[in-house]
Amino acid sequence: MAGNILGEMFRVVSFGESHGRCIGVVIDGCPAGLELSEEDIQKELNLRRPGTSRITTSRMEEDKVEILSGVFNGYTTGAPICMIILNKDVRSEDYESIKYTPRPSHADYFAHVKYGGYNDYRGGGRFSGRITAGFVMAGAVAKKLLKKILEVEVTAYTLEIGGEKAENFTLDEAKRHRYENDVRAPTPEAAVKMKEKIQQAMLRGDSIGGIVECTVTGLPVGLGEPVFDALDSDLAKAMLSIPAVKGIEFGAGFKAARMFGSEHNDPFIVKDGRIDLEKNDAGGIVGGISTGAPLLFRVVFKPPSSIALKQKTIDLRTREETEIIVSGRHDPCIVPRAVPVVEAMTAIVLTDHAIRYGIIPPVIRNL
Amino acid sequence: MAGNILGEMFRVVSFGESHGRCIGVVIDGCPAGLELSEEDIQKELNLRRPGTSRITTSRMEEDKVEILSGVFNGYTTGAPICMIILNKDVRSEDYESIKYTPRPSHADYFAHVKYGGYNDYRGGGRFSGRITAGFVMAGAVAKKLLKKILEVEVTAYTLEIGGEKAENFTLDEAKRHRYENDVRAPTPEAAVKMKEKIQQAMLRGDSIGGIVECTVTGLPVGLGEPVFDALDSDLAKAMLSIPAVKGIEFGAGFKAARMFGSEHNDPFIVKDGRIDLEKNDAGGIVGGISTGAPLLFRVVFKPPSSIALKQKTIDLRTREETEIIVSGRHDPCIVPRAVPVVEAMTAIVLTDHAIRYGIIPPVIRNL
Amino acid sequence: MAGNILGEMFRVVSFGESHGRCIGVVIDGCPAGLELSEEDIQKELNLRRPGTSRITTSRMEEDKVEILSGVFNGYTTGAPICMIILNKDVRSEDYESIKYTPRPSHADYFAHVKYGGYNDYRGGGRFSGRITAGFVMAGAVAKKLLKKILEVEVTAYTLEIGGEKAENFTLDEAKRHRYENDVRAPTPEAAVKMKEKIQQAMLRGDSIGGIVECTVTGLPVGLGEPVFDALDSDLAKAMLSIPAVKGIEFGAGFKAARMFGSEHNDPFIVKDGRIDLEKNDAGGIVGGISTGAPLLFRVVFKPPSSIALKQKTIDLRTREETEIIVSGRHDPCIVPRAVPVVEAMTAIVLTDHAIRYGIIPPVIRNL
Amino acid sequence: MAGNILGEMFRVVSFGESHGRCIGVVIDGCPAGLELSEEDIQKELNLRRPGTSRITTSRMEEDKVEILSGVFNGYTTGAPICMIILNKDVRSEDYESIKYTPRPSHADYFAHVKYGGYNDYRGGGRFSGRITAGFVMAGAVAKKLLKKILEVEVTAYTLEIGGEKAENFTLDEAKRHRYENDVRAPTPEAAVKMKEKIQQAMLRGDSIGGIVECTVTGLPVGLGEPVFDALDSDLAKAMLSIPAVKGIEFGAGFKAARMFGSEHNDPFIVKDGRIDLEKNDAGGIVGGISTGAPLLFRVVFKPPSSIALKQKTIDLRTREETEIIVSGRHDPCIVPRAVPVVEAMTAIVLTDHAIRYGIIPPVIRNL
Repeated sequence: MAGNILGEMFRVVSFGESHGRCIGVVIDGCPAGLELSEEDIQKELNLRRPGTSRITTSRMEEDKVEILSGVFNGYTTGAPICMIILNKDVRSEDYESIKYTPRPSHADYFAHVKYGGYNDYRGGGRFSGRITAGFVMAGAVAKKLLKKILEVEVTAYTLEIGGEKAENFTLDEAKRHRYENDVRAPTPEAAVKMKEKIQQAMLRGDSIGGIVECTVTGLPVGLGEPVFDALDSDLAKAMLSIPAVKGIEFGAGFKAARMFGSEHNDPFIVKDGRIDLEKNDAGGIVGGISTGAPLLFRVVFKPPSSIALKQKTIDLRTREETEIIVSGRHDPCIVPRAVPVVEAMTAIVLTDHAIRYGIIPPVIRNL
Repeated sequence: MAGNILGEMFRVVSFGESHGRCIGVVIDGCPAGLELSEEDIQKELNLRRPGTSRITTSRMEEDKVEILSGVFNGYTTGAPICMIILNKDVRSEDYESIKYTPRPSHADYFAHVKYGGYNDYRGGGRFSGRITAGFVMAGAVAKKLLKKILEVEVTAYTLEIGGEKAENFTLDEAKRHRYENDVRAPTPEAAVKMKEKIQQAMLRGDSIGGIVECTVTGLPVGLGEPVFDALDSDLAKAMLSIPAVKGIEFGAGFKAARMFGSEHNDPFIVKDGRIDLEKNDAGGIVGGISTGAPLLFRVVFKPPSSIALKQKTIDLRTREETEIIVSGRHDPCIVPRAVPVVEAMTAIVLTDHAIRYGIIPPVIRNL
Repeated sequence: MAGNILGEMFRVVSFGESHGRCIGVVIDGCPAGLELSEEDIQKELNLRRPGTSRITTSRMEEDKVEILSGVFNGYTTGAPICMIILNKDVRSEDYESIKYTPRPSHADYFAHVKYGGYNDYRGGGRFSGRITAGFVMAGAVAKKLLKKILEVEVTAYTLEIGGEKAENFTLDEAKRHRYENDVRAPTPEAAVKMKEKIQQAMLRGDSIGGIVECTVTGLPVGLGEPVFDALDSDLAKAMLSIPAVKGIEFGAGFKAARMFGSEHNDPFIVKDGRIDLEKNDAGGIVGGISTGAPLLFRVVFKPPSSIALKQKTIDLRTREETEIIVSGRHDPCIVPRAVPVVEAMTAIVLTDHAIRYGIIPPVIRNL
Repeated sequence: MAGNILGEMFRVVSFGESHGRCIGVVIDGCPAGLELSEEDIQKELNLRRPGTSRITTSRMEEDKVEILSGVFNGYTTGAPICMIILNKDVRSEDYESIKYTPRPSHADYFAHVKYGGYNDYRGGGRFSGRITAGFVMAGAVAKKLLKKILEVEVTAYTLEIGGEKAENFTLDEAKRHRYENDVRAPTPEAAVKMKEKIQQAMLRGDSIGGIVECTVTGLPVGLGEPVFDALDSDLAKAMLSIPAVKGIEFGAGFKAARMFGSEHNDPFIVKDGRIDLEKNDAGGIVGGISTGAPLLFRVVFKPPSSIALKQKTIDLRTREETEIIVSGRHDPCIVPRAVPVVEAMTAIVLTDHAIRYGIIPPVIRNL
């Protein structure tokens, strides 16, 4: 039991359900003195909001954040920050059918067994992607802290959807383009092809998977507390907590299985009088510690489980096989909306580690 | 700071250095009443011990476990279990050279910065693969608990080395063959090819990476505490804590990026009167909860950083570029020795979750 | 930083401020299947609500609980339970004066220094006794669990106020009388004398301290996880977290300093065929473990710091000495309203330990 | 389960048993760069060692510390520090009798039930006062850190034994005298009377309780993380974790129950141009935060349970009443030997909070 708190010094508590009264989050451990408004949070929330294009679910949610505590006169106080968004466009009747005929590869059945049938199954309840709105709210605070105190910037984008992969782009290009297109691709060319892939899947009543890549610039050497709270360990934990993520790899990642040490090793060089790395196959982490090079990792999202095609399932009442067509409004590909979620979780982990490493202080002194 | 404790109810504390007095571990939270002897631990330790074949480091360590606490009259008492192995075959002079010329892609330099130069750099200190002996000691206890109480079995093997991949084998074959060959491959054919790959790398003074696959059978539905302490989240954290691991994927893993939902989804079926899954692309975890299907994941190990080839590095005294040839005794491929480490970390996480889920009790009643 | 989460498996997260939007709490780790309504919570909240008699603050708060998550169809779901009460009768202007002239023995100044001046000082902010409403909400859930699963009952009452001490009463009498009188005394006679003491203090514009005693019946042998998470250790931590508590003692408590071992030791006897203790000077805990005898401890509350008498303080602007008369609506004695808070914190700690000890399961099976 | 780890950022892990192979401790989170030798630890250990006077147990233990990890070239490395003392003067046969006839008010029986009979009962096992040697080892490191980085000094002494109370002494006198006498009293006069009390109890074959007072100077304003990790909350938890402690009070403590607010409140004054407090009835903590005034608290120790007088107990085999005379070598009063233990636990909690508050850095820069 009790798995809804992440972090040691910057602690994020997740609560709320897809079709309950709200989605919420508490941050325990945010330094005092950070200028913070609901607009700061809203801006980030809007980036994951559904209903903004033809390739996302048509569920329309305003997702308007309310800060309930921890902010006074426009600054964080050092007290826990509770933030919620109320659920409004809820059509729970869409989900009554799944009560007894669990959707394949959704958590319905497994949660039913685990929680003895008491779980709120409407819209997937706690297992809905909607709970990541809470991650984004907490991440918005973390991103602001990282930016202000350390000039650290977290940038995620869609690297691949359904086999269509973005290639030959710089981080600057990615930053410029990713929010210009519906799929959050780093180049306009990739965006077109990825969108096509999604539309093809939609047309079939199917869904499609993809990969998000995340880069973080500005990290100093030394974040991460090996051996168990290594930076990559905690990032991996955080990423796998995002619904639909099935894997993570850092730097060269799985390709390292086919590399020689002489290829994979990143030689030290001196650049502009400073110690640097010639390349970054490590993805910015060695021995669980940030290397000063950009953090670089990729997470894979499975295709959404909710599809409009007929699927085999079982009827929990009769315990016999039956079929299901999942109705309701679902994303054919979760990757575009997951981009800000990956950024949020990354920022949360980095903030926690920056506090542990003593480089974000308990009080921010503004002049 | 303070990152050397893993788990919530079955807590593993790692200590010790490669060339210090010992490698050790404390388990806080092991149930009372588990029959446990040093032989139980030694058996597992022997599987990762170096010096047992031509393709591992020639450092000869007896790695003889001593249980210092927590066991009385042959049974665990419920008190913390401390176990150590003394370091014996230590040649620290091998490492004096790295003090000022850090080895590329090893933690030497980054640890030097993080710990202000106070870290024990000999043999990599806390960043040596040798600390995983502590993981294996704790894992041996966890494996015994899982086996006895839940009939859960953890099986890892080498799936791929340097592009040579084992194929077409059953779990039973993997169990039968993996400890018959030096590389821990699941088939004799793959073993031959993988060994060749390692020998080629060795001959060049180079190293090579690979992939370990891990399967767990016997898990009930319901392990894992979403959203942050999801089973895959905690497994990912534990795996990335193993030195040299650069990624993890569950079930179909990164392939899911190119799959449709209709392909990836695992349909429910009824088999022998019980609810089951037709296939297992989820890798035994959905929504962060075990599905009752075998747990299945892969972790990628980068090629060992220590190679006998000349590499670029910097001299910390002059802050100028220089070259280094890493001497000392090193594994050309860490994957074979990592197999029992992956099993150990898996067992630790599963035991922690089984206790949290209430299916391993605080006291084991033996008749 | 980050000190607002209590417990390991039944985790209570406190948030909210005295004059902010709300007081709230999240419980992470409540078992699924507990029947729970807002009425269950409200009943307990009403017992600490101010404004119910002439001897409490005249601040009138409805303190109406809203359950925001974690309950579905009248039962807990296993998901985090967030509960809030909105602040309504807020007169923040009362507090503007304290911004620069901190109230002696209130947290104003110390919080000002700690949080760099960013803390919400209105009504004491996070340091107000009002935040204990959150403790009571969480405690109501804990009490219900303890009662239902273990038949454990937590009973606190006012033992002493201003030197007037209740004497010669049984637990049954205490249960019967404590909510019949304004001061929560276990006997009507004591109630009269205690009330007089409070009224005397009020008349002077002063405040007065007292002692709450807490008894818990029905606990089995074995709760508590020594050495650091001993049952008394965790109860002590929880009690000292209640504003104004300055000490705790178990069983014979501080009197033990003047006792011989032959007096203090509780002999084992056989009673009705069961192993029992002849007396209970240990207060139900030995070696950090519950003994099966009633848990018995006392906590002392200092007199409220806010008094209407003139006091020395300093002016933070001039850093010179000045005087202050604290206006606003304050309790002359916090003890009566603290009684349900002590019960709540006790129940929270016991529930956490009962889950850790495996005697409250993750799912409550109702028929 | 799993209760042997204390602290969030400076984590102390306790292991070992009275008659097992060793008593030990791991510190996870000690900053790198602290000069540390076995002598530093030994010095503190010697202060609690038994066998040094006629009024302590005649068990002779050398209690020689061995540092197993975390220290290199005379400085801490930032890695976990494991320290042990081997048990030598072990006479386990003394304890075979208690296996079936539990000693009143000792943990024997309750541990037997909790751990299903698997606990190591020899010498009380984990419930022996001997495990506090581990606390002292960790505390020695904490004290050194506090002294070096913050000039914080922790001073405990025996305030009262069997009703004989030390009076009219200054902190300087206490520091000067406490280690000049066997009972660790702050004045020579009190020492004589306290020693008499102990000897009287000894002569009767009995034991006697007492009170330790602890003062900490040099703390800045702001340590403590309310609401649950308040400084007094965490100190209370740590103190109640010391075997035989039955209560704690801060500042005026239980006397506050009979005080008016106008008496108890500590007025702010200006002294030498700095904001100060006129008196210190709060004991250096208000609202869970250190006030800058000396920390001041008292803990009460019950008389040791092991006495040479005949006591009622039960026989676990027959479940009938019987009698027991506890043999073995025991302290007639634990208070004198507990003085360094109280200091150690205090230092551990303060160090943890100083790190959390950002005033002890991850690396100590020595020139």
